[in-house]
Amino acid sequence: MQARPSLPIGLFDSGMGGLTVLKALATTLPSEHLLYLGDTARLPYGTKGRETIIRYTLAAAGKLVARGVKMLVIACNTATANALPVVQAKFAPLPVLGVVEPGARAAVQASVSGRIVVIGTEATIRSDVYAKAIHALRPDAITSAKACTLFVSMAEEGMMQGRLVEDICRYYLDDIFGAEARTPKPDTMILGCTHFPLLKTALERVVGGDVVVVDPAATVATGVREELIALDLINTEKGEGTSHFMTTDNQERFARTGSLFLGRTLTVEEIELVDL
Amino acid sequence: MQARPSLPIGLFDSGMGGLTVLKALATTLPSEHLLYLGDTARLPYGTKGRETIIRYTLAAAGKLVARGVKMLVIACNTATANALPVVQAKFAPLPVLGVVEPGARAAVQASVSGRIVVIGTEATIRSDVYAKAIHALRPDAITSAKACTLFVSMAEEGMMQGRLVEDICRYYLDDIFGAEARTPKPDTMILGCTHFPLLKTALERVVGGDVVVVDPAATVATGVREELIALDLINTEKGEGTSHFMTTDNQERFARTGSLFLGRTLTVEEIELVDL
Repeated sequence: MQARPSLPIGLFDSGMGGLTVLKALATTLPSEHLLYLGDTARLPYGTKGRETIIRYTLAAAGKLVARGVKMLVIACNTATANALPVVQAKFAPLPVLGVVEPGARAAVQASVSGRIVVIGTEATIRSDVYAKAIHALRPDAITSAKACTLFVSMAEEGMMQGRLVEDICRYYLDDIFGAEARTPKPDTMILGCTHFPLLKTALERVVGGDVVVVDPAATVATGVREELIALDLINTEKGEGTSHFMTTDNQERFARTGSLFLGRTLTVEEIELVDL
Repeated sequence: MQARPSLPIGLFDSGMGGLTVLKALATTLPSEHLLYLGDTARLPYGTKGRETIIRYTLAAAGKLVARGVKMLVIACNTATANALPVVQAKFAPLPVLGVVEPGARAAVQASVSGRIVVIGTEATIRSDVYAKAIHALRPDAITSAKACTLFVSMAEEGMMQGRLVEDICRYYLDDIFGAEARTPKPDTMILGCTHFPLLKTALERVVGGDVVVVDPAATVATGVREELIALDLINTEKGEGTSHFMTTDNQERFARTGSLFLGRTLTVEEIELVDL
């Protein structure tokens, strides 16, 4: 079936972190319709095993495809890291984009020294996909990685700034950026989880002003635009694009926490409850 | 079907927190066989909606019942708070015990002033079941409650003690126990989540030595023993009781984190992967 340019772009995330990607897409492509699915009933994916992540991601992608989308964006690092090729194979020729490769590309462009650290969930770090994507672009890069499990809950709680938040950041990052770090410090840090941009201010204070903190969301949006142009799928209808939200659980929580991620008030009425 | 005394007691939790209850049961009833199911694939339940929690708890309870158990213990406050009556109705006449009522009873016994605070997950606090259970036992009790969402991740990460952990405890508890608390301080605090006993030392330092911190796990074990005696279901076989573990995801993580909760090394070989 030939995709129509007026169809929405489908975005999938395990929860609400992917809303940072939706926000970037809405800014970069204001005439596109966006259909977001957050699998909040089974969140977080970041502590789950690979097979489980693949099963859940396929189910969620299938839901979006059934609604009719012209492109899929896996707006979740854990799902991208573990399931992107499987989703691409299953739904071909539908274009399916992840967040890892764009994030790696932005980091390689930003880094002078080639020392790049990735922070993310346990499952993303375990998959090692960022290191692979970085080395494909710059073989002499020196990568390191750190799972920062608590950051997901903190972002969803709205614990984003202040002394305590910075102390928790230091708890995770001191062996990389602290006074007693044993290796030269990276000059670039990738926020390898879509929740982490909410902690960006605190993280920047902790790692210091000489470290570039890369949020892949912006690069993903650029990548989506390029792909839409290449496939001749840019929406040319008149008027503003719309956003529609689906969640698998607890619309109240989605509205409350989603507002933090979007930077605007999201109401329960805007959110559809779906089952997978 | 008449239950046989040699059958195991089934324990269910959304993850690994219920292992604190299993540990207490194994100590109190050393000759009983214990069959534990942790639904780690869909953990945490504490941030989910009521209907979802009921659906998941019924599926997990059904799995344990199918294996053959003489009693079910819902070793999870969130599942007890939201789904206990539904599980009891569905699997009657099988005895099904939760963790809330025993915890409330222990707190009422410990409290002099009648001022009792419950800390737990968002879903447990929202359900208000602890306040109801406490008031049923002591109508003039003055209850308060606080959702401490980050504590679950902290316990699972092994972040249990130290200055940073105490600072996070203060972040949640200062308006109840801090210098600027506006109401008289409670003299009793219920750990209304089976993860929280791992933070007990830090919590006791933060709330002060004059506050009794109640861990329902011990009281649950006493309640289970009384119920088994009443139903003539105590296992009278010779030899030590055994423990068998089932998880819905990521045996490695279950072994690693489960060891923290059990206080002994749990190996991957002891853990069976099951689907719900």
